[in-house]
Amino acid sequence: MKFEQAWLDYTGKVFCDGADEISYIHLEIQEKEQDEVIKNSVKELQNAFAGLTGHKLTLHEEGLSGGDEAAYTAADAGAGLHKIRLVLQKGMPAESYRLYTEENGITIEASDSRGILYGAFDLIRQVKTGNSIKDLDRTKSPVMPMRMLNHWDNMDGSIERGYSGESFFFENNTILVNDRTDTYARLAASVGINAVVINNVNVKDAATWLITERYLDKVKELSDVLAGYGIQMYMSLNYAAPVELGELDSADPLSEDVRGWWKRRMEFVFRKVPNLGGFLIKADSEGRPGPFTYGRTHADGANMLAEAAAPYGGNIIWRCFVYNCQQDWRDYKTDRARSGYDNFQGLDGKFLDNVVLQIKNGPMDFQVREPVHPLFGGLKQTNQILEVQIAQEYTGQQRHLCYLIPMFQEILKFRTYIKEENDTVEDIVSGRTFRQHNCGMAAVANTGNDVNWTGHDMAAANLYGFGRLAFEPELSAEEIAREWIFMTFGKDSQIEETLLFMLMSSWPAYEKYTSPLGIGWMVNPNYHYGPSVDGYEYSRWGTYHRADHMGIGVDRSHEGTGYALLYNEPNASVYDDKRRCPDELLLFFHHIPYTWMLRSGKTVIQHIYDTHFEGVEMVDEMIERFMKLQDKMDKVKYRRIVERFMEQKENAEEWRDQINAYFYRKSGISDEKGRDIY
Amino acid sequence: MKFEQAWLDYTGKVFCDGADEISYIHLEIQEKEQDEVIKNSVKELQNAFAGLTGHKLTLHEEGLSGGDEAAYTAADAGAGLHKIRLVLQKGMPAESYRLYTEENGITIEASDSRGILYGAFDLIRQVKTGNSIKDLDRTKSPVMPMRMLNHWDNMDGSIERGYSGESFFFENNTILVNDRTDTYARLAASVGINAVVINNVNVKDAATWLITERYLDKVKELSDVLAGYGIQMYMSLNYAAPVELGELDSADPLSEDVRGWWKRRMEFVFRKVPNLGGFLIKADSEGRPGPFTYGRTHADGANMLAEAAAPYGGNIIWRCFVYNCQQDWRDYKTDRARSGYDNFQGLDGKFLDNVVLQIKNGPMDFQVREPVHPLFGGLKQTNQILEVQIAQEYTGQQRHLCYLIPMFQEILKFRTYIKEENDTVEDIVSGRTFRQHNCGMAAVANTGNDVNWTGHDMAAANLYGFGRLAFEPELSAEEIAREWIFMTFGKDSQIEETLLFMLMSSWPAYEKYTSPLGIGWMVNPNYHYGPSVDGYEYSRWGTYHRADHMGIGVDRSHEGTGYALLYNEPNASVYDDKRRCPDELLLFFHHIPYTWMLRSGKTVIQHIYDTHFEGVEMVDEMIERFMKLQDKMDKVKYRRIVERFMEQKENAEEWRDQINAYFYRKSGISDEKGRDIY
Repeated sequence: MKFEQAWLDYTGKVFCDGADEISYIHLEIQEKEQDEVIKNSVKELQNAFAGLTGHKLTLHEEGLSGGDEAAYTAADAGAGLHKIRLVLQKGMPAESYRLYTEENGITIEASDSRGILYGAFDLIRQVKTGNSIKDLDRTKSPVMPMRMLNHWDNMDGSIERGYSGESFFFENNTILVNDRTDTYARLAASVGINAVVINNVNVKDAATWLITERYLDKVKELSDVLAGYGIQMYMSLNYAAPVELGELDSADPLSEDVRGWWKRRMEFVFRKVPNLGGFLIKADSEGRPGPFTYGRTHADGANMLAEAAAPYGGNIIWRCFVYNCQQDWRDYKTDRARSGYDNFQGLDGKFLDNVVLQIKNGPMDFQVREPVHPLFGGLKQTNQILEVQIAQEYTGQQRHLCYLIPMFQEILKFRTYIKEENDTVEDIVSGRTFRQHNCGMAAVANTGNDVNWTGHDMAAANLYGFGRLAFEPELSAEEIAREWIFMTFGKDSQIEETLLFMLMSSWPAYEKYTSPLGIGWMVNPNYHYGPSVDGYEYSRWGTYHRADHMGIGVDRSHEGTGYALLYNEPNASVYDDKRRCPDELLLFFHHIPYTWMLRSGKTVIQHIYDTHFEGVEMVDEMIERFMKLQDKMDKVKYRRIVERFMEQKENAEEWRDQINAYFYRKSGISDEKGRDIY
Repeated sequence: MKFEQAWLDYTGKVFCDGADEISYIHLEIQEKEQDEVIKNSVKELQNAFAGLTGHKLTLHEEGLSGGDEAAYTAADAGAGLHKIRLVLQKGMPAESYRLYTEENGITIEASDSRGILYGAFDLIRQVKTGNSIKDLDRTKSPVMPMRMLNHWDNMDGSIERGYSGESFFFENNTILVNDRTDTYARLAASVGINAVVINNVNVKDAATWLITERYLDKVKELSDVLAGYGIQMYMSLNYAAPVELGELDSADPLSEDVRGWWKRRMEFVFRKVPNLGGFLIKADSEGRPGPFTYGRTHADGANMLAEAAAPYGGNIIWRCFVYNCQQDWRDYKTDRARSGYDNFQGLDGKFLDNVVLQIKNGPMDFQVREPVHPLFGGLKQTNQILEVQIAQEYTGQQRHLCYLIPMFQEILKFRTYIKEENDTVEDIVSGRTFRQHNCGMAAVANTGNDVNWTGHDMAAANLYGFGRLAFEPELSAEEIAREWIFMTFGKDSQIEETLLFMLMSSWPAYEKYTSPLGIGWMVNPNYHYGPSVDGYEYSRWGTYHRADHMGIGVDRSHEGTGYALLYNEPNASVYDDKRRCPDELLLFFHHIPYTWMLRSGKTVIQHIYDTHFEGVEMVDEMIERFMKLQDKMDKVKYRRIVERFMEQKENAEEWRDQINAYFYRKSGISDEKGRDIY
């Protein structure tokens, strides 16, 4: 399948003050330290400069190309920038770099090869976004130690919740390693991704066999390609592998047989694939096997695997998405939102050092609005990864534009009050709060083998943005958006202004025309696309809105499920009190009459009507503005984006009309403004 | 796959006064008139008597077994019954028979071999149900000329809306002819079925090729097996076959090319399969191609095919299930219920004689309660088939017991007022009203390759009952049920009483715990199983309940869509007036406040609550009574039925609670009796 280069398209010259002056790369790194990552850094700089400036940079290696030394020295004596120096400089933090301008060139300094690579990509970014490189002095150290993508790719080639075509890792139960793999690794590395899980957390069928002879040679080959760009490969693991591979009758984590089996298996796997990062496990969740089957805890399960993987430096990333998915909708006490906390908080301190709990951003499942997961702030002695989803499962499936970086930023800035300072989610998962290093962020990836990687061209902003955010969370969502726009569409102020408006409006618009005030879930079951207010209302999934004639919302206060009290103070009291709870989460925490007055001065029902009309109006405005770019943009991309927007508009109107009709029919309360409600 | 014999199980002796005395069959039919049907009649009698009485009946053929003539004559001289005479007697109506007792034997007299076969099965029925055969005198003539099963079997082996396993006609795009085919033909013929459509009306993929060389040899083989039991085989046709087979660019019914193509194709098909009955066509419906594509009418389409099939005696059965399935739920004027009438009524008199319009019993789609289709009473010069569905798509999918014969009887007895007398649906489709003979009843079949043919053992009562009803609509639903019980479980008064209670309670119970007062459609989309009140409310399918805070129902009166006025008077005035409209159809015809007082003295909302509780209570009572049969019944069947009932109970409770919760939450009106509503 054909594919484009997304934001790494180096065709077409750009103007960048100083870039034209560079003529060579000075590689001041000894040959024995020139690993694949260093070599790829050089190659990337050469390709980028060749495309963007038209100059083929020659490579000058210290002490190797002795004959030309004099020529290089002479060249350097002239005015202007001449070279890019790559220098390993011990003593800097891991993965960090300094990128600075000297009299006759640019220097990238780092203590390791990943730092060099990230510095190289930063320099390319400066060039491509048209910044001057004549006065650089940037020292960057990635904030999140782990910056990870989780691919939910199945070995048959399908992608669970994939909206961008089929897998480029798997096809017909085989592993693919080809040109596309290489470009994928470059794209990921260019935004600082340093870990990738290649297969779906729901490990079934052939994927259970990834840890066997059948696949390990090819696993190694893929792992090496990724490692060449500083990316550690991980695999999702089937907890019941010893049983499903037909070797044992049990997967009891306290059984010596099982523990021995895993030790031998890990030795076998890591010997074959020494650069493997470890494993991701979804256990006891949505039908997946796990330690509960044997009456054991998740700590028992995770530690068994961690012990077996430890000798090889392997990590066990253990998902906290564990809940009862056989709930009775008549039951108002059981609360799915509580389940992650209830299952894991009591295990704090019981996990080995190479176990990392991966916690979704909210307690439910990637809704357009949720409170922050109470496990952030509930765990003190446990490595934690914040899991977000850029695959737009509930946020428009890459048929709607929904730029998620502003949401992720809100989550990162959330104060958990677990300590007096350094208590935000960002502090915790960056390792600042508890001085941890096995922590970070993971995103469920939104890629596939579509020509543009992400289905919707503009959904690439989420892929780009996730990496940049995990690396530099101090960047604003606008800054990241602007970077992505320049990298992808070039530096044009009308394109910049229009796309920035669209990106920044998109999450608020989607929230407005879908489900109001934090209630979530009003989607078609299974598909998770399009409105269905009662779609999950009488189901087993624990996802209810409890709307009746008088009001709507789930009482999660102390009088209800008590969920609000899982937070540290003052969050607990704020959420618990319907008069203090933020409007945007009001229905998540409380059952509220339609006539309740919000802080905005509107009633709940009027808020529902207004936001649903506004959301569609925002889409209309996005389209209107975008249409004006017709003559400025690449025709193919323009057409693709317009097509997506036509569907978004139609679907948004459907959301508006169904939600409004539902609440009008239920409440009997008319819209103050007398608009069409059916 | 193993299979049972359903009601044709001849194992185990039965008591029937007189049956033991029979020792031979006297076949008084000339050899040249002994077709396969006659031979199968003899074989069936021999097998039945061997099993049920233990006597192997010998065969005495007039003028052939001369040597034994004297012995037979001598035997006949003794007291009691000795023989079964099979006699062709010209002058009787087609397919009819007389079954009567003479001094020394039983005679089956008929003018054709089908009559002989039906007489033979009637005699077997008398024996198996334990009636005395010493004083028989039964003359029966089937009331419906066409008594048809429609199988929605796909050539890949799946069955659309099949709830009894896979197809026994098709597997992996091949046609199956085996033991099971033979037993199927016997079961169908035993209840008087004389026509069968073997493939799904949605003709796609391989099924389009059934009329080509690729399949016709095997089609012939299957057709011959069925013909051996008096059953004419039909196939569903792809209207766009000339295009989809790649031979023409158009399927325009007025194009000479297309007409010529069909003439050649029909000649080819009927030459290969001369006993083929004809074709069933679903055109311009739910995505199927049809004459609308070319701006032509359904008469144009049907007549083109009919003209091509006429030289070979072929019929074209044309479905009237044509409606806009891309409706906008915001549109209160377009009414799916009108579409059949609006599309076909104006074509009355325009169809050729060998075209038969097949009309579903109601204007929507096989809901548990619908008014009778207004085309019955809207057409005077058109052959008509009443289509019912024993595949329980919307009536519990053979996981719930729902004996449908009482519903079919109500439909047959419905007065259309198209004439002063002989104006019921039964009159029309039996041919009495307009002196037609290409008419009758068709049922969408409920069979599959499950061991018991119908998934739920008791669903076989619908298969049995449909045939019996089409043959003898004057039988009551109770009589048919009782026959089936005796035929299937033997003659035991406790079994009889229990199963009769269950069968006769089952449709009322299902109606009560599902959707109230004729509104229908509150099911999970696509699957059509289990409750989802708003499942279709905002969809494109034209199936709405329009429930709001004040009331529920669709205004189909003269103030609404005008549908009520499609009926002849006085039906139109009755349906049009909410004070005269029968309660059970009230919400079909009118939007009614929850507080409206029904004839029963209950409000609409209280009726909803009460019926939903009552429906589940009826299921509980069925189960309680059935459990007492544990020691009397075949263990395997008992267990299978209990399993189905456990699911029915759970699902019925889900219906009750979801429907009640929905209307309680919407109306805010409490249950008078204070029962649990969630």
